[in-house]
Amino acid sequence: MTTLREARVTRLSMAAPDDVAPIEAAIAAGTIDPAAIRAVFGKTEGNGCVNDFTRAFAVRALRDMLKGHLAADAVERVALVMSGGTEGALAPHWLVFEALDAATPPGDRADKALAIGVHVTPPMAPEEIGRMAQVEAVAAGVRTAMANAGIVSPDDVHFVQVKCPLVTAERAAYAARRGTPPRTADTLKSMGLSRGASSLGIALALGEVAEGDVSEAAIGADFGLFSRRASASSGVELMSNEIVVLGRSAGWSGPLTIDSAVMADAVDLSGVLGLFARQGLTVGGDRRVVALLAKAEASSTGRLRGFRHTMLDDSDIAATRHARGFVGGVLAGVVGHAEIYVSGGAEHQGPDGGGPVAVIVRRD
Amino acid sequence: MTTLREARVTRLSMAAPDDVAPIEAAIAAGTIDPAAIRAVFGKTEGNGCVNDFTRAFAVRALRDMLKGHLAADAVERVALVMSGGTEGALAPHWLVFEALDAATPPGDRADKALAIGVHVTPPMAPEEIGRMAQVEAVAAGVRTAMANAGIVSPDDVHFVQVKCPLVTAERAAYAARRGTPPRTADTLKSMGLSRGASSLGIALALGEVAEGDVSEAAIGADFGLFSRRASASSGVELMSNEIVVLGRSAGWSGPLTIDSAVMADAVDLSGVLGLFARQGLTVGGDRRVVALLAKAEASSTGRLRGFRHTMLDDSDIAATRHARGFVGGVLAGVVGHAEIYVSGGAEHQGPDGGGPVAVIVRRD
Amino acid sequence: MTTLREARVTRLSMAAPDDVAPIEAAIAAGTIDPAAIRAVFGKTEGNGCVNDFTRAFAVRALRDMLKGHLAADAVERVALVMSGGTEGALAPHWLVFEALDAATPPGDRADKALAIGVHVTPPMAPEEIGRMAQVEAVAAGVRTAMANAGIVSPDDVHFVQVKCPLVTAERAAYAARRGTPPRTADTLKSMGLSRGASSLGIALALGEVAEGDVSEAAIGADFGLFSRRASASSGVELMSNEIVVLGRSAGWSGPLTIDSAVMADAVDLSGVLGLFARQGLTVGGDRRVVALLAKAEASSTGRLRGFRHTMLDDSDIAATRHARGFVGGVLAGVVGHAEIYVSGGAEHQGPDGGGPVAVIVRRD
Amino acid sequence: MTTLREARVTRLSMAAPDDVAPIEAAIAAGTIDPAAIRAVFGKTEGNGCVNDFTRAFAVRALRDMLKGHLAADAVERVALVMSGGTEGALAPHWLVFEALDAATPPGDRADKALAIGVHVTPPMAPEEIGRMAQVEAVAAGVRTAMANAGIVSPDDVHFVQVKCPLVTAERAAYAARRGTPPRTADTLKSMGLSRGASSLGIALALGEVAEGDVSEAAIGADFGLFSRRASASSGVELMSNEIVVLGRSAGWSGPLTIDSAVMADAVDLSGVLGLFARQGLTVGGDRRVVALLAKAEASSTGRLRGFRHTMLDDSDIAATRHARGFVGGVLAGVVGHAEIYVSGGAEHQGPDGGGPVAVIVRRD
Repeated sequence: MTTLREARVTRLSMAAPDDVAPIEAAIAAGTIDPAAIRAVFGKTEGNGCVNDFTRAFAVRALRDMLKGHLAADAVERVALVMSGGTEGALAPHWLVFEALDAATPPGDRADKALAIGVHVTPPMAPEEIGRMAQVEAVAAGVRTAMANAGIVSPDDVHFVQVKCPLVTAERAAYAARRGTPPRTADTLKSMGLSRGASSLGIALALGEVAEGDVSEAAIGADFGLFSRRASASSGVELMSNEIVVLGRSAGWSGPLTIDSAVMADAVDLSGVLGLFARQGLTVGGDRRVVALLAKAEASSTGRLRGFRHTMLDDSDIAATRHARGFVGGVLAGVVGHAEIYVSGGAEHQGPDGGGPVAVIVRRD
Repeated sequence: MTTLREARVTRLSMAAPDDVAPIEAAIAAGTIDPAAIRAVFGKTEGNGCVNDFTRAFAVRALRDMLKGHLAADAVERVALVMSGGTEGALAPHWLVFEALDAATPPGDRADKALAIGVHVTPPMAPEEIGRMAQVEAVAAGVRTAMANAGIVSPDDVHFVQVKCPLVTAERAAYAARRGTPPRTADTLKSMGLSRGASSLGIALALGEVAEGDVSEAAIGADFGLFSRRASASSGVELMSNEIVVLGRSAGWSGPLTIDSAVMADAVDLSGVLGLFARQGLTVGGDRRVVALLAKAEASSTGRLRGFRHTMLDDSDIAATRHARGFVGGVLAGVVGHAEIYVSGGAEHQGPDGGGPVAVIVRRD
Repeated sequence: MTTLREARVTRLSMAAPDDVAPIEAAIAAGTIDPAAIRAVFGKTEGNGCVNDFTRAFAVRALRDMLKGHLAADAVERVALVMSGGTEGALAPHWLVFEALDAATPPGDRADKALAIGVHVTPPMAPEEIGRMAQVEAVAAGVRTAMANAGIVSPDDVHFVQVKCPLVTAERAAYAARRGTPPRTADTLKSMGLSRGASSLGIALALGEVAEGDVSEAAIGADFGLFSRRASASSGVELMSNEIVVLGRSAGWSGPLTIDSAVMADAVDLSGVLGLFARQGLTVGGDRRVVALLAKAEASSTGRLRGFRHTMLDDSDIAATRHARGFVGGVLAGVVGHAEIYVSGGAEHQGPDGGGPVAVIVRRD
Repeated sequence: MTTLREARVTRLSMAAPDDVAPIEAAIAAGTIDPAAIRAVFGKTEGNGCVNDFTRAFAVRALRDMLKGHLAADAVERVALVMSGGTEGALAPHWLVFEALDAATPPGDRADKALAIGVHVTPPMAPEEIGRMAQVEAVAAGVRTAMANAGIVSPDDVHFVQVKCPLVTAERAAYAARRGTPPRTADTLKSMGLSRGASSLGIALALGEVAEGDVSEAAIGADFGLFSRRASASSGVELMSNEIVVLGRSAGWSGPLTIDSAVMADAVDLSGVLGLFARQGLTVGGDRRVVALLAKAEASSTGRLRGFRHTMLDDSDIAATRHARGFVGGVLAGVVGHAEIYVSGGAEHQGPDGGGPVAVIVRRD
């Protein structure tokens, strides 16, 4: 029989992208065990777009810090997922996810406890990015991460974060020399296609789309296909797909659980209020909310509930920045503060203009 | 005995800053009477800062349009108040305020009906801007506008919009030549001081601050002094203070009324939810909401509920733009769409980091 | 025999996008004859990208002003070409182009005098934009404008400005309903394709590319094909192509002439210095320079003379804004001030990363 | 008798702010000796303003790299000066300054060879920043650095880079608690005051201003006082003033020398052309130019040679970003590429709107 596990999630404010001092302090205080860290998410204060170096800066600081506590290969196994962009009042912060031996039996709580599963797929070839090979690799990886976490049913999965690769000029040239050109040589486009393929891989693993419905042509194009629990971001620093599954499992115990909803559009407060009601959370400052994770994007129609928005036409501020700030406001009003993880660029991650929302809750 | 009046407020989407076609169409359809127009507010899609020409472009288009329906001096009497900045999903739109002869007696509704009062102060000298002279001129003007609207008690005032002047290099030089230099020759600073003095004038007229508490030194400095119902914006095109008072009066009838609240900070959903509850409005799409008007700003402390925000440190996006998008999200979630009038730069307009919110409601 | 004509070009500083007062003043002073105006170019202080309303604001102010001096149909015949973006120290200004009866015979100057030709093509159907139909229409239009100006040889053409149409969502839908979908329904893409097709039309008319080399596939794709004298900008307000040809002709007299060069890349000072030397102009402030017109763009390779530039990767500032500011600096150093007409977005307008430069010179 | 020294300056392209690989490669190839490195300048691709983390990211990567080659205290002695902002085509790059034992005697060259002096002042108290204490500390430090470099006459100094401290909220509070409040508690303002005080310190040391002319009131206010060779940038990471003096000395040998000029304004090409002529350099690509260093800023008058610029009124792009891109263009045209070190924010560094320019030249 497997050991009962317990998830711990620690949210810590960040004074700068390289400010790992709060994590160090928690380790020193014994409230974070470095050996138990499975993933660190960071909401960093860059522009969240192409030339956002706050993500890499944060990763470098995290790695250096972890090396002081763990062997090099153990550091490599920790999933480090940085999301740039703290528009509006969004607060830069870390989310540290640990898997501990359970301190307490699960008891008879209504909800199963939070479970965390991490898996890294084998490296993709550049020509696989944004194609069915990536969809299938991520789908398989999500299933493996679920198994690692002891999550049995796809219904128990509430948030899947994937960090996925992209195509650079060098990678495209390398693939072309081998006679297998990538789907695009445009870095920015490849980021969207990689996020899209990853998200459809998640959707496939969770049974949200059928195998036969997904095709290369649909990736980045048919936004009627989507996952209600996917969050994907692409980064230059890896060629594999790094997968973090957050869900519920009877094999985990402890005070934390997770639940999720999908926002139908950028002002869909009702979905979020329903989620809060279901978890018995009060609006505007319930301290049982440990973390909120969400995706935001500008609707491709240029409309929101029939009214025009100007996010796609603004040549001074990127649409993703507008969307994070605005959806951040919608959600921060409910949470009662803005230290929430709102990430942009939501291809196949929730419906067009909407996106998944997950909340990690401390049960009394 | 005075005639019973009735306010009409028409909200119309704007396809571009000069898109007055929807107003023209409403005039053609008889749903707006040009002779009854007292004020037009516009939420235009510029950056809302110094080099935002969408405001002047909108005013030019409005004036040209009105000239087709009204004599030149009547056009001049219409208050035209443009607020730039549609960050996030905020939708560009017009709010046309009319004062008509009442079609129906007030009946025995619980709330008094919406009343509109407009007044323009005499022109300020450059050296009066941002000083007690402006505070007192605006205070007197608000009282006059209230009297014009038949609003008896300051408690019945729910939103006061002031468009106020600013100091340009030429105006500063002119004043200096006369031996009376202005408080500042810096245009941007003068905008804040003018908004601040106007807002304290409103606060004085509404009894929110005592005469003895306001001084030149307090303007733009002591943000503990503020009005809960003031909204001020400064513009280069005028030297007077153009005042629009929105409140309730027994001398007005019709289906519309107004109510207001103050957000204590940028995520203060509770104040807004209380306002909606008081008016019997449902959250997320009540069609009885005719218009929502609010002020937004980044807290000067750099903190929101204890967490750091990055709005004041972002050298790529102005803090006012961040604040409008984020507070726009908080409010749009409640309203159920983003065609709402959220304006930035809130010196002495609500508490630091917060701001007034007013809602115009159609009573069944 | 045709009358001898004389071109007059007046450069006037602009205090704001709608500041037509300097033109009004010149008309009042008799230094501009409204009936002689053939074209007005404006360098306005917007972002020069999609949501730049300074262009339309300037056009509205110009039209209103001209209506005070000319019949409505005469106003319509004046080509109004606005280019947004005054990055760096670029100064907002107007260039007013007049065609007068010649005051003086051409004499025996070495260079022929400046000649101005204007022509407007018939309206394009949406599905013609960015295709060979537009290439051919512009080519024919350039030939007509040359004939109008009495410019015999393509070698005597030094700058061709085209304002060309774009595809909006409505136009795309209209075309699709008729069974002839446009090349793209994406507005931004259609702008580039329209500029590209127009520029290749210019190249065709000037013999810079051969008829057989231009194809739909080459438009917006094969940047080895280009005109050394083309400047194209697309605007939502027209469906025709408005063409202004600036060249030299024996049928014109007066003190002005024009010459041009092409910058091979963004730092190609040598081409510009050669142009100045050829015209006997001193570097850094020669008052005989009446106007300088140029196109600027970021090289698509991400490199300039082997060194990386970051213009294409900057998600905070559009690449066209970077390019205008930088190339503006290169050219302003030579001219000795920055009231020069530097325009962005240079598909098929000069080599990749470079662009045409023309100078209008007053001969002593 | 002191050993004859020789300066080596290596310019290396940077693929990202943390890309120290080219320096590592040069060390591996023996073309850089880590023990000889006195300073590393970096032009990094952030916004160059408050929230530019590329500078700190670059410093972290440099320190980590140097630690692989040097003892910790030796690493600390290397001056690391990062300047953010590669607007226009400016290319991100490193400048590595080494002091070696001279390989060759000075011979009888016309110019003395390049000499490098580094000195770090004692830490400032927060209340000393932007005041005479800082002016005097920097002045003394420049004299010490000159002595270290064996530079005898102030006339032989051609560029002085100072990295100076700033006041944070914590530092201001700490100083206030001790009863000695700093000159300002506003971080951004303190940056300008610190740069200003440092630059006046340089001016004092070089005899460009008289002791009696400098006062606290003049710092950040009287821009008639300035150094023609100062370049100052402030950073949060230090409380001392880190000084790098670049000049000429008979105590140094080798192929490199340095010369400088001052641009009177942003389009002052003549000063730069004069500098190039004096050094026998051809315009547009002379390979003997090892490095060019310059300061850029928007003139505070809003005018350049009588024409309006819009840099100070643009609420979307910071004036420093505009200025770097534009002046970068002016200078890159002369150098023939854009891998040049153009830095913004030039209080008391050259005349208002202008700035110092220095060139490091390889003599035959």
